[in-house]
Amino acid sequence: MPSPNSSAEPPPGRGRRPATRRGGETASYERPRLRDTAGYVPGEQPAGGVKLNTNENPYPPAPAVAEALARFPIERLRRYPPPDAAPFRAAAARRHGLDPREIVATNGGDELLRLALATYVEPGDAVGIAPPTYSLYRVLIGLHGARPLELPMTEDWRIPEDFAEALNRAGARLAFLVNPHAPSGRLFDRSEVAAIAAEFEGVLLVDEAYVDFVDPALGHDLIPLVREHPNLLLLRTLSKGYSLAGLRFGYGLGPAPLLEPMRTKTRDSYNVDALAQGLAVAAIESRAWARDNWAKVRAERERLRAGLVRLGLPTLPSETNFVLARVPPGERRAEALYHALEGRDVHVRWFGEPRLADRLRISVGAPDENDRLLAALADLLSTPAPGS
Amino acid sequence: MPSPNSSAEPPPGRGRRPATRRGGETASYERPRLRDTAGYVPGEQPAGGVKLNTNENPYPPAPAVAEALARFPIERLRRYPPPDAAPFRAAAARRHGLDPREIVATNGGDELLRLALATYVEPGDAVGIAPPTYSLYRVLIGLHGARPLELPMTEDWRIPEDFAEALNRAGARLAFLVNPHAPSGRLFDRSEVAAIAAEFEGVLLVDEAYVDFVDPALGHDLIPLVREHPNLLLLRTLSKGYSLAGLRFGYGLGPAPLLEPMRTKTRDSYNVDALAQGLAVAAIESRAWARDNWAKVRAERERLRAGLVRLGLPTLPSETNFVLARVPPGERRAEALYHALEGRDVHVRWFGEPRLADRLRISVGAPDENDRLLAALADLLSTPAPGS
Repeated sequence: MPSPNSSAEPPPGRGRRPATRRGGETASYERPRLRDTAGYVPGEQPAGGVKLNTNENPYPPAPAVAEALARFPIERLRRYPPPDAAPFRAAAARRHGLDPREIVATNGGDELLRLALATYVEPGDAVGIAPPTYSLYRVLIGLHGARPLELPMTEDWRIPEDFAEALNRAGARLAFLVNPHAPSGRLFDRSEVAAIAAEFEGVLLVDEAYVDFVDPALGHDLIPLVREHPNLLLLRTLSKGYSLAGLRFGYGLGPAPLLEPMRTKTRDSYNVDALAQGLAVAAIESRAWARDNWAKVRAERERLRAGLVRLGLPTLPSETNFVLARVPPGERRAEALYHALEGRDVHVRWFGEPRLADRLRISVGAPDENDRLLAALADLLSTPAPGS
Repeated sequence: MPSPNSSAEPPPGRGRRPATRRGGETASYERPRLRDTAGYVPGEQPAGGVKLNTNENPYPPAPAVAEALARFPIERLRRYPPPDAAPFRAAAARRHGLDPREIVATNGGDELLRLALATYVEPGDAVGIAPPTYSLYRVLIGLHGARPLELPMTEDWRIPEDFAEALNRAGARLAFLVNPHAPSGRLFDRSEVAAIAAEFEGVLLVDEAYVDFVDPALGHDLIPLVREHPNLLLLRTLSKGYSLAGLRFGYGLGPAPLLEPMRTKTRDSYNVDALAQGLAVAAIESRAWARDNWAKVRAERERLRAGLVRLGLPTLPSETNFVLARVPPGERRAEALYHALEGRDVHVRWFGEPRLADRLRISVGAPDENDRLLAALADLLSTPAPGS
């Protein structure tokens, strides 16, 4: 053998096969399961224009977050971060009236989705989803080697009546529900979620990515359910409600025994960095600022929806920071409108899939952004639809 | 069904089973595979004292990193980050003379390890390791449901002669090698790595977490191998060489076709946040600062090693930022010494496992830290060993 600390010639009798022997077949290193699997396609991140395509918050993060950034001691980056995000978990526990053992911090809410699969689901197990829904669920289920069990939303955007029963029949170990629902914007109330959690024999993950935008007059609050259902896991994120999509910080709330294997086994020990932890604490403690932004988003949401309806685009009420507008007469017109808006540097989302292809999903922007969208739509809709 | 936007009573005929029915059995939601699996146990992160236990860099991050932090526009956190870390990948490509498609950015080097399993290995497949080695490898292999194939290091800390052959015989799809080796500090040279890559039929991941501390006089450089071996993946991290353990930023270098499914499928679209990306670019472009720190660490490493040898602790030469000191007469003395050092707020690492239990792994600190360690050791070693 060569001396390990020298740049010697190749050792005799080893490694004489040509390094290029696999020539054009490198793709074969990919594991077989992935070969026919498509990855998640995130929304575009255009640099300019009116960006209403990925549900970002139009208002800036709290001043306390900017201060935490300005004050952050660079020296702290030299050390590993608190491995279990203890300061953030303590802050989140205070905020939600829970125990820190009922909180897990994640690298964006998306990491919690992956961790739920890694923690509760064996490859081959069924995992329930209610399409149309956040398309990442299906991608992650496929990557994990689990089976997606699709129980479609009803025609009027409700959870199917027999959802829990069908999950149990298929032996599902996990189900993903987004609430308020994306992309319809509809809210399922506490009693409905509680009933599913009570009946379902697996883990119910309720993705509350948009919950901050729910009208407070509804008194909607699922947090107390965490103490009532041993199988209920709530997902929160700072991306939308706290204007921090760039920070990648999410968290889960659930019963301590349910979270324990995720906190101590499947989660990477240092999954959230020291800077993100510091800013996340500042964000979650800036409730007044956040609440103010949520109220502004809700007001604009109602104005945007009214404007879309006036333009002849039927738009459901929404409890999120986006709306789903239907484009008569249908798919071709919706897709054409999407491209025409792109051409004017106005970015919304069009999903070429069942139940959604005749619609546009539009994030609620700042007043001037919503005005520019409505003006562009008014202009485009005043020309006849292609083929009509 | 209840109105989805009201807080109505539970719907009739659904969810009447008591939520507490699972009472004490909540642990059963954990997937069977995990029940007997232990998580990774990271090194302690004590707040004070002499911290020489988790191989952090004793010198601060580059001034350009502090500037990037100070200048970071808070507004940018409102938007999603560049999903593929394009600015960092471009900077890393320039730095290493590669193409951005030959770079993948990850949430710490640890994420690259997990992604390699998710991308190249089916559950049940064999994955090679050469213990003693970084203990996270085995944890991640277990979590993925793969089989660890242990091919132990030789007595004199070399890779076993038949490493690639044994991997091939077991049908291994992936092998993890850390180089320079942890915890011995030994470097395997380019020809040795090339020979293994050429012979091995799976993916060879060479974890170069400590490569920045290799003596430049050795001319060690594995990067050109990336263009010669379709199955070679190198891991880099900013944690050690760039004093940014708190930032969680690592990256992989490999042939574009090898990385492609990782970049587009198994990796989360937004796996590294906007702040971390910005600081990582500043760090990797601050070569002079980093090189200066590496030289200082190397000088202290030689001084620390000489001091340990003088104290009667045989210590191998190291090409990393730590040394592995043997404590005669053996295990009980090493463990006792570890605890005694802890008692004096001097933190090193002791691994109670085969081949390591009679040793201490000591990170190279700043001169005063190394002095305090050596003084504490001199004092403790002047008292007789327990039982001797």
